[in-house]
Amino acid sequence: MTPLVPIRLGMVGGGAGAMIGNVHRIAARLDGQFDLVAGALSSDPDRAAASAAAAGIRRSYGDYAQMARDEAARPDGIQAVSICTPNHLHFPVARAFLAQGIHVICDKPMTATLDEARQLAEAARASSALFILTHNYSAYPQIRQARAMIARGDLGRLRLVQVEYAQDWLTEASDSKQAEWRGDPARAGAGGAIGDIGTHAFQLARFVTDELPERLAADLTSFVPGRRLDDNAHILLRYSSGAKGMLWASQVAPGTENGLRLRVYGDNAGLEWQHDTPETLKYTPFGQPAQILRRAGPGSVVGGSRVPPGHPEGYLEGFANLYAEAADAIRGGTHPDTLPGIRDGLEGLAFIDACIRSNDADAAWVRVMP
Amino acid sequence: MTPLVPIRLGMVGGGAGAMIGNVHRIAARLDGQFDLVAGALSSDPDRAAASAAAAGIRRSYGDYAQMARDEAARPDGIQAVSICTPNHLHFPVARAFLAQGIHVICDKPMTATLDEARQLAEAARASSALFILTHNYSAYPQIRQARAMIARGDLGRLRLVQVEYAQDWLTEASDSKQAEWRGDPARAGAGGAIGDIGTHAFQLARFVTDELPERLAADLTSFVPGRRLDDNAHILLRYSSGAKGMLWASQVAPGTENGLRLRVYGDNAGLEWQHDTPETLKYTPFGQPAQILRRAGPGSVVGGSRVPPGHPEGYLEGFANLYAEAADAIRGGTHPDTLPGIRDGLEGLAFIDACIRSNDADAAWVRVMP
Amino acid sequence: MTPLVPIRLGMVGGGAGAMIGNVHRIAARLDGQFDLVAGALSSDPDRAAASAAAAGIRRSYGDYAQMARDEAARPDGIQAVSICTPNHLHFPVARAFLAQGIHVICDKPMTATLDEARQLAEAARASSALFILTHNYSAYPQIRQARAMIARGDLGRLRLVQVEYAQDWLTEASDSKQAEWRGDPARAGAGGAIGDIGTHAFQLARFVTDELPERLAADLTSFVPGRRLDDNAHILLRYSSGAKGMLWASQVAPGTENGLRLRVYGDNAGLEWQHDTPETLKYTPFGQPAQILRRAGPGSVVGGSRVPPGHPEGYLEGFANLYAEAADAIRGGTHPDTLPGIRDGLEGLAFIDACIRSNDADAAWVRVMP
Amino acid sequence: MTPLVPIRLGMVGGGAGAMIGNVHRIAARLDGQFDLVAGALSSDPDRAAASAAAAGIRRSYGDYAQMARDEAARPDGIQAVSICTPNHLHFPVARAFLAQGIHVICDKPMTATLDEARQLAEAARASSALFILTHNYSAYPQIRQARAMIARGDLGRLRLVQVEYAQDWLTEASDSKQAEWRGDPARAGAGGAIGDIGTHAFQLARFVTDELPERLAADLTSFVPGRRLDDNAHILLRYSSGAKGMLWASQVAPGTENGLRLRVYGDNAGLEWQHDTPETLKYTPFGQPAQILRRAGPGSVVGGSRVPPGHPEGYLEGFANLYAEAADAIRGGTHPDTLPGIRDGLEGLAFIDACIRSNDADAAWVRVMP
Repeated sequence: MTPLVPIRLGMVGGGAGAMIGNVHRIAARLDGQFDLVAGALSSDPDRAAASAAAAGIRRSYGDYAQMARDEAARPDGIQAVSICTPNHLHFPVARAFLAQGIHVICDKPMTATLDEARQLAEAARASSALFILTHNYSAYPQIRQARAMIARGDLGRLRLVQVEYAQDWLTEASDSKQAEWRGDPARAGAGGAIGDIGTHAFQLARFVTDELPERLAADLTSFVPGRRLDDNAHILLRYSSGAKGMLWASQVAPGTENGLRLRVYGDNAGLEWQHDTPETLKYTPFGQPAQILRRAGPGSVVGGSRVPPGHPEGYLEGFANLYAEAADAIRGGTHPDTLPGIRDGLEGLAFIDACIRSNDADAAWVRVMP
Repeated sequence: MTPLVPIRLGMVGGGAGAMIGNVHRIAARLDGQFDLVAGALSSDPDRAAASAAAAGIRRSYGDYAQMARDEAARPDGIQAVSICTPNHLHFPVARAFLAQGIHVICDKPMTATLDEARQLAEAARASSALFILTHNYSAYPQIRQARAMIARGDLGRLRLVQVEYAQDWLTEASDSKQAEWRGDPARAGAGGAIGDIGTHAFQLARFVTDELPERLAADLTSFVPGRRLDDNAHILLRYSSGAKGMLWASQVAPGTENGLRLRVYGDNAGLEWQHDTPETLKYTPFGQPAQILRRAGPGSVVGGSRVPPGHPEGYLEGFANLYAEAADAIRGGTHPDTLPGIRDGLEGLAFIDACIRSNDADAAWVRVMP
Repeated sequence: MTPLVPIRLGMVGGGAGAMIGNVHRIAARLDGQFDLVAGALSSDPDRAAASAAAAGIRRSYGDYAQMARDEAARPDGIQAVSICTPNHLHFPVARAFLAQGIHVICDKPMTATLDEARQLAEAARASSALFILTHNYSAYPQIRQARAMIARGDLGRLRLVQVEYAQDWLTEASDSKQAEWRGDPARAGAGGAIGDIGTHAFQLARFVTDELPERLAADLTSFVPGRRLDDNAHILLRYSSGAKGMLWASQVAPGTENGLRLRVYGDNAGLEWQHDTPETLKYTPFGQPAQILRRAGPGSVVGGSRVPPGHPEGYLEGFANLYAEAADAIRGGTHPDTLPGIRDGLEGLAFIDACIRSNDADAAWVRVMP
Repeated sequence: MTPLVPIRLGMVGGGAGAMIGNVHRIAARLDGQFDLVAGALSSDPDRAAASAAAAGIRRSYGDYAQMARDEAARPDGIQAVSICTPNHLHFPVARAFLAQGIHVICDKPMTATLDEARQLAEAARASSALFILTHNYSAYPQIRQARAMIARGDLGRLRLVQVEYAQDWLTEASDSKQAEWRGDPARAGAGGAIGDIGTHAFQLARFVTDELPERLAADLTSFVPGRRLDDNAHILLRYSSGAKGMLWASQVAPGTENGLRLRVYGDNAGLEWQHDTPETLKYTPFGQPAQILRRAGPGSVVGGSRVPPGHPEGYLEGFANLYAEAADAIRGGTHPDTLPGIRDGLEGLAFIDACIRSNDADAAWVRVMP
């Protein structure tokens, strides 16, 4: 048994009241692989300090740039940083830590613009540090299982991808902290629902199928009066392999909660997964009874479980799987295929950009990677 | 209590081996409202006679035209006829019986082409008889409930329609009787999946919302080599009201059976229904707990039930609801709004036509009603 | 193809307002195997005549005894009779028709008392006619599938039976027609919930496992003040094979509708079925992924389907399956194992009797067949 | 915002390979409320040291008694200890730490015998420290919601409790570490399934209803040859209020995973919950549509959530809720009603004892609290 020595972690963003900051902290803590020792949880130093204390973080900074410099200079400085700010800050913050050789674990979308994404890709190439993007849904064991089954040919040649991500929290105009920055193009970037959740749906399908759509056609809408970014997206997909798909992302569908759902069909079989029962993967070989594949159950070929089937693991455990994989990567110095990173980030920004280009042309087909 | 005097019914098509013919017979019989007394179940007179005998039908014809003439001339001749032939015969058969003043209950799509549909509309206007189209899914009590709830404003202003109809029986090339004529443009018409099941999905959404999409963009595919008609359709919808939608129809999705599903969202609430649990309607008022509305259960405002909730009714009962409504209409001489007819048939053919026009233009937007 | 000549059927009970009479009529009609031509739908002749007319029945009697005599004497008299009266009349009515050599299709429980059940068994043995008991739930295709799988050893040696039947319609005191006679020991017999639904649950488990429990212990309750018969039953079962079981029957469980559920476990596998999704059978071989077995789908080894999987069949179709099987039995003159009859009726009354004996002894163990 | 100062925690048991030890560690870590600094993870000192290092625990002991003494003597000694040993050690270990004034967080069942449970109750009364029992299932938000709804009268007068806990991992004889000690009366105590999972089911029903059954009748079985303890239990319950119940606990039901399920019915409404969808509570007011109550969703009156509805929380989060509540209790010095403790432990051992007494008397009724 290897002694456990936690990785020293810092955090930028995620101050009091931010949902996703707490999620990152729990995910980092869950398996005991990280020790959160420093943070710049807010750009307001007092607020940063109070948030850090409440989170049990020893060293608080009011400025991420100084944090990057100071931590890099300490013998006991952080080895990695989690970035949980609004989208527009992902780029400068990530660049600052990468420049210091500090590994970055960044929320999605990777940057606010495709141009920034390209610059960050450059910065990552130039750095000795890893860049990890928290596309957490791709770390669910049954999503990993789906990917493995498709990779080994269980579905045959892929034909169809149906992916959707439906929420309802923006059904009405909202001035919550969460809604406020997400509705502001200056902080969220050019994508509303497509950036916030569409990128997750897009990445999930891409991760599971290991295929990137070649072209898309997008019909974006802002249903709520006064909203400046899309709150609903209807998107058609075409793959170079001949496969086709549909992607629906919505934040105005009353009664949906966090309704991410993926269905993939090949010429031999289908797979169905939905987020509200994340531990179940329905496998439907053509002409045979459907099988219910359960996390850590019979037929499972992947890891990522802490408890036996029937003891529900969920969102936080999936998020923690990314952190655990990140810990392994940081210790081993290599970035495994299954751990989302720069490529996913670039593709996500290309997706947002393509959606907007297509929508501006009345939902004409555009290339995803221009 | 009114004495029950069944309506004398005839049938064209639906000979031995035809699934849908037996469905029509059961539906006609289920509530005792019809007495099936004559038929031209096949164009081969011997086969027609054998099929008629096996179905307990007294008078068998080898020729629908003669059947129309002879039955109209008899004092005890049929009052209505069910048409269960392949699509391309719907038009001439329906016209022949309408011309004799015999009510027509016809399977969908109404005709093979939009032009025929228009001619049939003319023929129906000129006839004293009713024309009823068996869009059976619109007769499920919980679909009627959904329509009533939307009509009374429970959802507020409609924003989103998600409708899909997925099957898997054409995943591979098939030479079954069912598959054979459906794959032949001369008998099925220009639509494959869009005609066979897409029209159902389209009509269902239109029936429930009482809105017809103004424009659509369709990406059609024939995945199975050699297949001449589409087996998969990805369609975007736009309504004049500003609402938008997606429609997926597929016959190549392994593991799906007869997967019709409808979701409608307004600015106040959502409704979700799926065919494999047809007696349940999920109602999701924004900001309140979801409610499970059950056929004939608390909150129900529609009829169409024979047994209490918890005693599953299904496809045949839904189909029988159309026949029961048809019996009432025939007896009363008026065609209620909820009973599909010429308008639905015209819209269905317009839908097929629009899909093909759009697909030919690389999924460009086209008007549904040209 | 064999010409269809319907069997001439009569009905006793089932006048206007009776739910189960209409169910029998639909079930008899659904496959076209019966022609309902005579009835004594009420003991009030005027009411009987009105009910018969409304049901399209030609010959109405005000007296079942006369009906039995007259119909037996007619050349075109009924060949079979359906008995849909309150329980206490099952015995005299069935005996009268059996005595005339007319086949009997009788609702359950077979009689009001165990003693009557034994007398009716005698009468049936002495008659040339068949006696069929409408334990309709045992005619669902997936129940037949479960029985076939257990018979061929898929579950290994049986260990556990969990069966329950929960309703809520007697949660409060009720004076509905349905509730009224069921609450009166003179008409319902000695069993309340145990007779009305407990017998169904008991028969279902017995049918599927092909094992009769040897002993039971029953704790009966009447929760609603003033109610004279049990409205809830908690029952433990022991089989001579060593298997054990639990049976719960309730009519006071708010929110349940017609919640019949069966789970059987052997040392190799389990099977789970529930009435609100009657077309699905969950098969769980130990150490392998669960399989979803669907009516008429892959792996099906039984008949009883009219339409492909995904076109829901339900309660009325299951009931009609018994009628179709009865038609075959009547035509063929033999009573197949799968068609419930005298044995099931005797066992059902023995079950009611055993429950009451056990309950009177503070839920002591008693033999089911004394 | 209050600065977070973690509570110093120790652990006894839970060495490498023990599932539940890791669960306790994750639960303690998840919200950052505990710092695990000392442990006696095995009675073999080398193994204890290796396990401690692998878990990142600084101080390892080979002997729990010494650990209790030494930690109590250190200024930076542990404030609380988690006990994750086989059942027979719960009592001596808990007593040792309570004697030192160190708070105890103990797995269930509380002790191996009812007599020990009483002694431990004495020891807890005599100690300044708290005793917390990890009946983790009672900490699910929707279980707390159910309890709150019943307490405020939403169900009216309670009539029925249906609770079950079904697993399949002991379907066959097993020599896994988990199975081995659980099958040994010397280490597990007198209960097999009733101790391991029956106590959970019993406590869950008791927690939610706030009623303790007065009497029970238990039919226990060991289905697997050679097994010395029960692997299946069928139990009837009677409450002094007049309510009644059934409890099923099984470890030999193939295909079940960790199938804890609770249904409670009163004269006004019912509640249904099952462990595989722990975030959903079905509320069924009589005569109204069923409502789906979701963790942190509309209608929620309890806490215990970290992320919005639709982001699944599960077993580890529920377990962590107990630890979070324990942290509050330890800091505040008071033991809230909702946090299981000595009373639950005593009742659990009384339940096991009553089951065995009843079963020895052929499932006769016995008092739960003798």
